[in-house]
Amino acid sequence: MTARYAIGVDYGTNSVRALVVDASDGREVAAHVYEYPSGDAGILLDPKDPNLARQSPADYLEGFRVSVREAVKAAAAEDSGFSPEAVVGLGVDTTGSTPIPVDANGTALSLLEEHKENLASYAWLWKDHTSHAEAEEITRVAQERGEPYLAKCGGVYSSEWYWSKILHCLRTEPKVAAAAASWVELADYIPAYATGNTDPATLTRCICAAGHKAMYNTDWGGLPSADFLDALEPGLSRYRYETAAVPSDQAAGQLCLEVAKEIGLPAGIPVAAGAFDAHMGAVGAGCGDGVLVKIMGTSTCDCVPAPLDANLPDIPGLCGVVPESILPGKYGLEAGQSAVGDIFNWFVRRLSPAEYGNDGAAHVKLTEDAAQLKPGESGLVALDWNNGNRTVLVDPRLTGLLIGQTLHTTAPEVYRALVEATAFGALTIIRRFEEYGVEVKEVINCGGIAEKNAFVMQVYADVCNRPMKVSRSAQTCALGAAIFGAVVGGAYQDVPSAQAAMTGVKETVYEPIAENVAVYERLYVVYKLLHDAFGGQIGAADLGGVMKDLIAIRQSARKG
Amino acid sequence: MTARYAIGVDYGTNSVRALVVDASDGREVAAHVYEYPSGDAGILLDPKDPNLARQSPADYLEGFRVSVREAVKAAAAEDSGFSPEAVVGLGVDTTGSTPIPVDANGTALSLLEEHKENLASYAWLWKDHTSHAEAEEITRVAQERGEPYLAKCGGVYSSEWYWSKILHCLRTEPKVAAAAASWVELADYIPAYATGNTDPATLTRCICAAGHKAMYNTDWGGLPSADFLDALEPGLSRYRYETAAVPSDQAAGQLCLEVAKEIGLPAGIPVAAGAFDAHMGAVGAGCGDGVLVKIMGTSTCDCVPAPLDANLPDIPGLCGVVPESILPGKYGLEAGQSAVGDIFNWFVRRLSPAEYGNDGAAHVKLTEDAAQLKPGESGLVALDWNNGNRTVLVDPRLTGLLIGQTLHTTAPEVYRALVEATAFGALTIIRRFEEYGVEVKEVINCGGIAEKNAFVMQVYADVCNRPMKVSRSAQTCALGAAIFGAVVGGAYQDVPSAQAAMTGVKETVYEPIAENVAVYERLYVVYKLLHDAFGGQIGAADLGGVMKDLIAIRQSARKG
Repeated sequence: MTARYAIGVDYGTNSVRALVVDASDGREVAAHVYEYPSGDAGILLDPKDPNLARQSPADYLEGFRVSVREAVKAAAAEDSGFSPEAVVGLGVDTTGSTPIPVDANGTALSLLEEHKENLASYAWLWKDHTSHAEAEEITRVAQERGEPYLAKCGGVYSSEWYWSKILHCLRTEPKVAAAAASWVELADYIPAYATGNTDPATLTRCICAAGHKAMYNTDWGGLPSADFLDALEPGLSRYRYETAAVPSDQAAGQLCLEVAKEIGLPAGIPVAAGAFDAHMGAVGAGCGDGVLVKIMGTSTCDCVPAPLDANLPDIPGLCGVVPESILPGKYGLEAGQSAVGDIFNWFVRRLSPAEYGNDGAAHVKLTEDAAQLKPGESGLVALDWNNGNRTVLVDPRLTGLLIGQTLHTTAPEVYRALVEATAFGALTIIRRFEEYGVEVKEVINCGGIAEKNAFVMQVYADVCNRPMKVSRSAQTCALGAAIFGAVVGGAYQDVPSAQAAMTGVKETVYEPIAENVAVYERLYVVYKLLHDAFGGQIGAADLGGVMKDLIAIRQSARKG
Repeated sequence: MTARYAIGVDYGTNSVRALVVDASDGREVAAHVYEYPSGDAGILLDPKDPNLARQSPADYLEGFRVSVREAVKAAAAEDSGFSPEAVVGLGVDTTGSTPIPVDANGTALSLLEEHKENLASYAWLWKDHTSHAEAEEITRVAQERGEPYLAKCGGVYSSEWYWSKILHCLRTEPKVAAAAASWVELADYIPAYATGNTDPATLTRCICAAGHKAMYNTDWGGLPSADFLDALEPGLSRYRYETAAVPSDQAAGQLCLEVAKEIGLPAGIPVAAGAFDAHMGAVGAGCGDGVLVKIMGTSTCDCVPAPLDANLPDIPGLCGVVPESILPGKYGLEAGQSAVGDIFNWFVRRLSPAEYGNDGAAHVKLTEDAAQLKPGESGLVALDWNNGNRTVLVDPRLTGLLIGQTLHTTAPEVYRALVEATAFGALTIIRRFEEYGVEVKEVINCGGIAEKNAFVMQVYADVCNRPMKVSRSAQTCALGAAIFGAVVGGAYQDVPSAQAAMTGVKETVYEPIAENVAVYERLYVVYKLLHDAFGGQIGAADLGGVMKDLIAIRQSARKG
């Protein structure tokens, strides 16, 4: 075909990346990354409340303009075949659930003078945990009323999700709540901005965010009923939108003139409906029936599609089972770990001794020494819950645990135990999929850790007793977004055809080593016992409360 | 009285200290410390077996000669009233159980050419844990046979103790076992050497070592029966001595000419029967009925005397309840924590980040920052079991645990949690005393941590909800030994009179702070729950096995 290009725009936790891709073969032509300038690496914090994490919508908009404009410029410089007119489509992926309160015009409230001092008017970043009480209440009320809504999100509603955050705002920040005409997920906010259709009543809402985070399902006619929402808090139902949520192979609209001028592209280019970074990342890594993609970063997201005609049961503890959220025409199944790289980073920053240092280089040195250890020889096991547990316990109020320390325990031993803990967490997710009949015949990893750390990948292969493959692209989320851009731009008839041409895995595959597998089988018994005891899954009910008791004590101590 | 002096000789884990004391008021005139030259800070290690810890009897003997000789010289230089002839008596305290295999002359086997290459012929240091299987077997066999022997040592025989070590040697080192005519505790070995009565059949055995570590009790006629010992292993009974063990207000003999010449003292000075460092330290700190003395060092020993006429029940989990082991005419009750300072040292050495450093100075900086935190605000709780648990679980095969970590957890928070864990361990011991009717109306602390770290003492006061006093002397073990020297030398009629004149506490008393006490009551509930669950004390039997499972996995991994 004539050279045709697609652009993927990927909103991460600390920056946004625009990627220009050759739609014929997935070749990555040029990219530009824009670091959010506000707060601590883009995150607005409250020193009094460690649960709070917000972001600035102004950063998002400026990030779109700068990253796309610069990537387009760079593509023109890199590739003589490239021209702005050769761009067929643009896709967007973002973190989520990251809802933004907007006025009736769709303008983020934080952009208005009146609200800019109030952190509640900003974007509520996915890892904002201020709303855990509301999450528990939503779960409880839905259960009490016998509502079907939780069946598709593991039976437990999360503090990270849409309605928890909105409910918390409604109760604690009445001025922001009153000014908000609607709450728009970042995944919808950017396509709305790019296409100029920002009216909350009509802007395109994507099935990925709606289905996974807002309890949207066509089985019950879209969002939860106004009756249910108002039972949580009278007035909550005013944020219930009626729009039908769509998968990302549908366009949210066309690039509007005003934005087109800013970014150096022609107006009218189709813009795909948004989706979450992990879901588009899974597409960019090559997910398909039985092909699980693990996006490994500060946290992880595990995505696997399943045939829509499969008689899929509800899967307890799974973040979401949503038709068409990953691939059109398939169930999208999403699981995840609340912290993976974040745990390793925490250890390096806070507890790595002087000989290893407390900067990024420490990862390399600790990895080298940890890799010299044999599985089990430290006598340590950890739980990977420093940021709570997303799957399968769905409980943000769980915390870390390390057991087995002696007077000889070393830093690389602890580091290795933390790596192993995340691998045990990964295995727990795979087992849950399989227990409920979801095939996992192949695992493809992507993200910085998968790219850079062969030791971690080998531990995962040994713990999970499966080969671990790594995606060819180092920018799978942006690539996935570009794939949807290519599809809405007509370069391919459907997503699987685009994937076949544009994705692949690296040659190196991490194969499980039998003797390590045998030790990890024994260690996993210990992990699972601790997991179930402290996760409140087995008889030792007292222990199931221990981490929450400590959090309650911590909270009173910090208030006092 | 005319100036009269007493000498205390204190054998620690890494060095021996001789202290010359003015017997009239406890004034410390001069001291000399001799660092053991062999091995790693005096400890002989086996890189293949982390449980092994031996010491050289040659170091002990040279240490006696050098430390006493130099202290005597220094006393003469410091105090014009001092002369070698004014020394009325000498006392000795040592670590224990630290048994030494000797030949029929009482010569340590390691001093003989034939055995010097074999670590089994050396002193088996208190913290040698090679004999844990034998300890478990002794406990089991005594229980199966319905023997009374364990009643006075908490119902569980320890891997650190006399018969465990001898049995292990008999089974694994037949050459050493065959050459050994007897096994002599270090606390008896030094007075035997000083007095020249080294014949294993007649040398003075102290009640402190015999009663606390060798199951000696007059209730059953001294040591356990030959029948019982041979049931453990045929031939073990050959190490059963018939000597009556005595308290330390009795003389082991008089300084013999040969040794007297070496150390610059007249022959004939009375030498007290030995005792363990912690027991003499308790005496030097001022222990008495209801006055608990905590010796706080790398590990701790908690000693409290109780009236002999009290109808004292057997106390489960208490290392020992032995008549006259601390003060003549009283029960000596001993409890302890397997690691306290060792845990803080471990953290500093292995996990303290660069900003604090990994040397001794890190303790000061971490303490400063930990002291700024409020109780409970870290959300952390630890178990103080990095070196097992001595009281009340009596289980060397328990390990550390840390729970409550988030992505924000800092090094001072962990350090504080470790300090608090040891304080919870201390409270658990006090509660056990009280539950069984042993009064604890006052707590006096001594040792380096009590001397130097006000923060640790305040945490102990807050956790235990009791005032924490600190001994006036910084050398309470040596002072206690000197007190016994003064008593056998006739300077006082009995130990309490000597204590009244020679001991005292510092002016600063750490009083509990009510609001901290309230938080620690809540945290102790969590500690105790984890303690009981992982210590195998409550229903969650699976968890009770977790640490041992990890050790088993560790052992196979290290062998593999």
